[in-house]
Amino acid sequence: MSSTEDHTYKFNVKMTCGGCSGAVERVLKKLEGVSSYEVSLEKQSAEVHSSTLDYETVLQKIKNTGKAVLSGEADGVGMGV
Amino acid sequence: MSSTEDHTYKFNVKMTCGGCSGAVERVLKKLEGVSSYEVSLEKQSAEVHSSTLDYETVLQKIKNTGKAVLSGEADGVGMGV
Repeated sequence: MSSTEDHTYKFNVKMTCGGCSGAVERVLKKLEGVSSYEVSLEKQSAEVHSSTLDYETVLQKIKNTGKAVLSGEADGVGMGV
Repeated sequence: MSSTEDHTYKFNVKMTCGGCSGAVERVLKKLEGVSSYEVSLEKQSAEVHSSTLDYETVLQKIKNTGKAVLSGEADGVGMGV
């Protein structure tokens, strides 16, 4: 992967209320290098677009929320969590 | 404050469900240097005991959860958040 391409990272995150998903949103909003993101409580998902951040960096930030990350993928490829 | 004394840090954290408080608990559980902690959804509080960590370090870890920290104190003295 080139670091200048836009990457899509998807995570399955265990969230049980709007406070949970709001917390993940706040973290992604503050994360420099994120071009866009979408957090869905209904889908239990966080999707992040970035051309500068690697998968591990985004994964770690989401893990820092204390939420359980059940699975992840980068540009459609399953990754470790 | 000597760094060898046991300090008590208290935070008022906005949490709306057990998933929220569980996330804060997981972060404190993983934080090296915490001797004990208590997170209460009912009281909207997180109390942390440590003899090695300073207030700012614990505050930052809790902020990394994406939860709003409304106030904080160290050994009974109000601190910035």
